Amino acid sequence: MLCVDVFTFQAIDGPVIGKVVASGNNKFVKGDLVLGVFTWAEYCFVKETTIMRKLEPSEFPLSYHLGVLGKLFINYMAHVGFFELCKPKRGEKVFVSAACGSIGSLVGQYAKLFGCYVVGCVGSQNKVAFLKDKLVFDDAFNYKEETDQSSTLRRYFPEGIDIYFDNVGGKMLEAVIDNMNTFGRVAVCGATSEYIDIRKRASLDLVNVIYKRIIIQGFLTPDLMIHHFQNFMIKTSNYLRTGELQVTEDISLGIESVPSAFVGLFNGNNIGKKIVRLVEEEE
Amino acid sequence: MLCVDVFTFQAIDGPVIGKVVASGNNKFVKGDLVLGVFTWAEYCFVKETTIMRKLEPSEFPLSYHLGVLGKLFINYMAHVGFFELCKPKRGEKVFVSAACGSIGSLVGQYAKLFGCYVVGCVGSQNKVAFLKDKLVFDDAFNYKEETDQSSTLRRYFPEGIDIYFDNVGGKMLEAVIDNMNTFGRVAVCGATSEYIDIRKRASLDLVNVIYKRIIIQGFLTPDLMIHHFQNFMIKTSNYLRTGELQVTEDISLGIESVPSAFVGLFNGNNIGKKIVRLVEEEE
Repeated sequence: MLCVDVFTFQAIDGPVIGKVVASGNNKFVKGDLVLGVFTWAEYCFVKETTIMRKLEPSEFPLSYHLGVLGKLFINYMAHVGFFELCKPKRGEKVFVSAACGSIGSLVGQYAKLFGCYVVGCVGSQNKVAFLKDKLVFDDAFNYKEETDQSSTLRRYFPEGIDIYFDNVGGKMLEAVIDNMNTFGRVAVCGATSEYIDIRKRASLDLVNVIYKRIIIQGFLTPDLMIHHFQNFMIKTSNYLRTGELQVTEDISLGIESVPSAFVGLFNGNNIGKKIVRLVEEEE
Repeated sequence: MLCVDVFTFQAIDGPVIGKVVASGNNKFVKGDLVLGVFTWAEYCFVKETTIMRKLEPSEFPLSYHLGVLGKLFINYMAHVGFFELCKPKRGEKVFVSAACGSIGSLVGQYAKLFGCYVVGCVGSQNKVAFLKDKLVFDDAFNYKEETDQSSTLRRYFPEGIDIYFDNVGGKMLEAVIDNMNTFGRVAVCGATSEYIDIRKRASLDLVNVIYKRIIIQGFLTPDLMIHHFQNFMIKTSNYLRTGELQVTEDISLGIESVPSAFVGLFNGNNIGKKIVRLVEEEE
């Protein structure tokens, strides 16, 4: 295999780009590049029922098919989550948590390109600088330096938040509800602050949810995939060609780096899409 | 005044039906019945800017205009909340909390008439019997007799919940999320369990919200009013004529009963729409 997308719903399977070394299926021949959900390994046996497709050569680096152009699982979420669920209007105020992550960094950029005001929150000063200087977010802050997230958000959004793309859940979601405008929309894409400790779950102020008529919606990409994928691919490919969309990848090398890469996701170690490159091979 | 709707957003004003005793506005003359948001009192001075309309004679009791046919504030919520937000399909499993309240009792009946399976939760055995015998809910339970609401709901909804019409928030909402089906919908209409004690706020399991693609939506009637009111009135009037829709009112007498009626709402004392009749007058 060539690359491993280090985000997975089971500890041992995940989106992978591999090269066929032998095939009993006449749709695939030795040397074909394939994108599928395989076991994290240097070699693996793939059953016929596995979700997988042949990867045709493209103008973009191979790893983009796990990230910014990825159809499998999470990356396409940025686009559908933002445009289909959040239904943005130009000029609206958008807040993105885990804004340096693979999804957050794309959501923020799509929102900027669309004409929204965008602020991201991240866990280090380094990442704040990255969002403001490299990804041209309107503003960004390090939540670890703040004691009261609700008053912090009030500072960054004096006119309130219209859209929240939530990757973390927990206290930050509570603070967002405090600062949300009427008819605010929350797309719940992840809840990293709650994955390990359920005591950190968001305690929602439902009275605010009612009076502000807020919509909170969880989603997974596959539901929204078929209808919008073509539009997503055309738009995103064009943005990549013109350089309007910045791709951020955090690539580590070798099968031995998979566990630390996976654990690092939950500690916020990565900037951009976390990928493990298993083999140094010419693309 | 004749009747007071004992639900209000300020402690001293609320939806009221009154009779004009004197008028400086040529749209209203002495003896006219009016529906508006007035001070809770036997007599009051109404400014020209007050929300109010003349009440034309109808085949239904006067109090219905504060309740089942009420356009002002909360009663129309049952209809729009259920049909517009929850978007029910026939055969879906519907759960209603505070199901003996003015809104809950109507939502459950609309859901049954539409062809859903409906279970309500209430706070007494008396109310359970009322829902099952008088309002023909499929089932009902007294949450005060249950220790683990999540396993209780699993018992009443072995196939999961598709729609939750939430009047209470808190722990019950948490338990619903546990038992919700994929693409479940929650209409948040009230949060009585949280009004007094914010420590009782619902701590949502966002991971479930994501994987089940749940939508949680707060709403207020006025946003949805203009578009759907005519449809609501025709359907509801017909149901009342045929007797398919049962009207439940809990009427107390005299201005002196207003405070205890208001407090009683939060203790779950009433069955159906709580109304104070100020004057015993022929309608």
